[in-house]
Amino acid sequence: MTDAASPPQPSFHGGPGSGPLVAAPSHEVPPAATRSPAEEARTLVDSQIAGSLASLSDDGTPWASIVTYGATAKGEPVLVLSSMAEHGRNLQREPRCSIVIAEPVEDGVDPLDRARVTLAGRIVDVDGEEADSAIEAHAENFPHARAYARYGDFTTYVLKVERVRWVGGFARMGTVEAADYAAAEPDPTWPGVADARAHLNADHADALVLWARTLGGYDDAATATCEAIDRYGVDLKVVTPRGPASARVAFAEPVAAPVGLRAAPLERVTRANAWDDGGLNSHH
Amino acid sequence: MTDAASPPQPSFHGGPGSGPLVAAPSHEVPPAATRSPAEEARTLVDSQIAGSLASLSDDGTPWASIVTYGATAKGEPVLVLSSMAEHGRNLQREPRCSIVIAEPVEDGVDPLDRARVTLAGRIVDVDGEEADSAIEAHAENFPHARAYARYGDFTTYVLKVERVRWVGGFARMGTVEAADYAAAEPDPTWPGVADARAHLNADHADALVLWARTLGGYDDAATATCEAIDRYGVDLKVVTPRGPASARVAFAEPVAAPVGLRAAPLERVTRANAWDDGGLNSHH
Repeated sequence: MTDAASPPQPSFHGGPGSGPLVAAPSHEVPPAATRSPAEEARTLVDSQIAGSLASLSDDGTPWASIVTYGATAKGEPVLVLSSMAEHGRNLQREPRCSIVIAEPVEDGVDPLDRARVTLAGRIVDVDGEEADSAIEAHAENFPHARAYARYGDFTTYVLKVERVRWVGGFARMGTVEAADYAAAEPDPTWPGVADARAHLNADHADALVLWARTLGGYDDAATATCEAIDRYGVDLKVVTPRGPASARVAFAEPVAAPVGLRAAPLERVTRANAWDDGGLNSHH
Repeated sequence: MTDAASPPQPSFHGGPGSGPLVAAPSHEVPPAATRSPAEEARTLVDSQIAGSLASLSDDGTPWASIVTYGATAKGEPVLVLSSMAEHGRNLQREPRCSIVIAEPVEDGVDPLDRARVTLAGRIVDVDGEEADSAIEAHAENFPHARAYARYGDFTTYVLKVERVRWVGGFARMGTVEAADYAAAEPDPTWPGVADARAHLNADHADALVLWARTLGGYDDAATATCEAIDRYGVDLKVVTPRGPASARVAFAEPVAAPVGLRAAPLERVTRANAWDDGGLNSHH
């Protein structure tokens, strides 16, 4: 999952390399499940609606352009493009292409320290029933496509994904097999994550610090804030007297849907308490 | 500036085509200056720090990837890439490439209704003095590049721009000549625009509605809000009893720097008042 192509951590507004020393865990904790690179890629593609297409111009220059998409059940981007647009003409001539889809980045965050995925393969001009379902996939994000996809100068394309390159940020990346990408389940929690994270940080500071002290591995955690949530658990930013740290705490069971996110943390608290009270923390 | 490649206005959360009828101006107004497509393109490139590169993979597939950049005085993107990364290897093999740079988009806005520009040409692996100044251009956005650009596996590239395609949103687009792009001045006001716009809308509602009623062409404007500001003027969203409308009001003189933005609107008020009082509005 890591590879040598990672840049040497250029730091930018507090990015890697410029922070204070990171505190080591105070005790060993069970490994916490995370999403696989294939799940990360599928989730990123599902959670965005636009990316950048690389197609081939008639003079042989790779041509970068913004496209909107919806994804099929296998995570294939569906584009609805005018044949009068340069990228539409390019794809008619040369079906090999790729799309990069990136997590939006806030001001002050290094754009290279965010998740993105490149999907490469061949674009197919679909028709018949395959066009109907492809247009539906696109129309989930852009309802008006149901109308204009049928115009004479518009074509519905599905990218048949042959190669997937996922980058999660600095030093988190990996090539994903196309079959694994197609088979992976997008994390169903992503639509609720922003709200759940705000809720945890606003109303459950005690629970967060408890998780950090027990399953998180930092028994001297003074505060903990939720940085990210996914179906398998939460990432915490921990402050200890020995310095800042990061911790990962897994849910007892993966969350199946966004509506489960609110309940899951409470289940997590129970488990963390039980673990703490059960004498397993013999280092205490 | 318009061309047939514009999609037929797919609407999305209130985009073109889904809104109420737009009111016509109540009186003719002088044409208001706007930025040229070349100025729009230069300003967009100057105001962003990342884009998507289209390079050519060894199997002939155009490869889309995220890159960070800084721009030279001629608006050429400077990239600092590892030769171990796929796009770095691609550029070593095939220097023809392009970069698309897009305005960030808020949730609920159609990603195709925002400004973006594709710069295409040949990437040049610079060295000597040209490398020094190129690295400085990149380092304006990413200061740590001064260190890692000198690492053995990193290369500093300048994109020699041969073709520019600017799209301002739905039905606003145009091909910009490379020489015009290189010669155009980026709008110096962009760093202050967000603050100036907030200031106008918060504290100068009376001035805005006055501009809308006079130089804006809507003498029945009930309210006006500032949608955008550039060195040449402001775009207003106007509400009239006859329906909503858009208006453009030019500054008396182009603004030379961000610090001028606060003063310019007051000058504008003076001129709008003078014009109103001077009997030019004979339709009243």
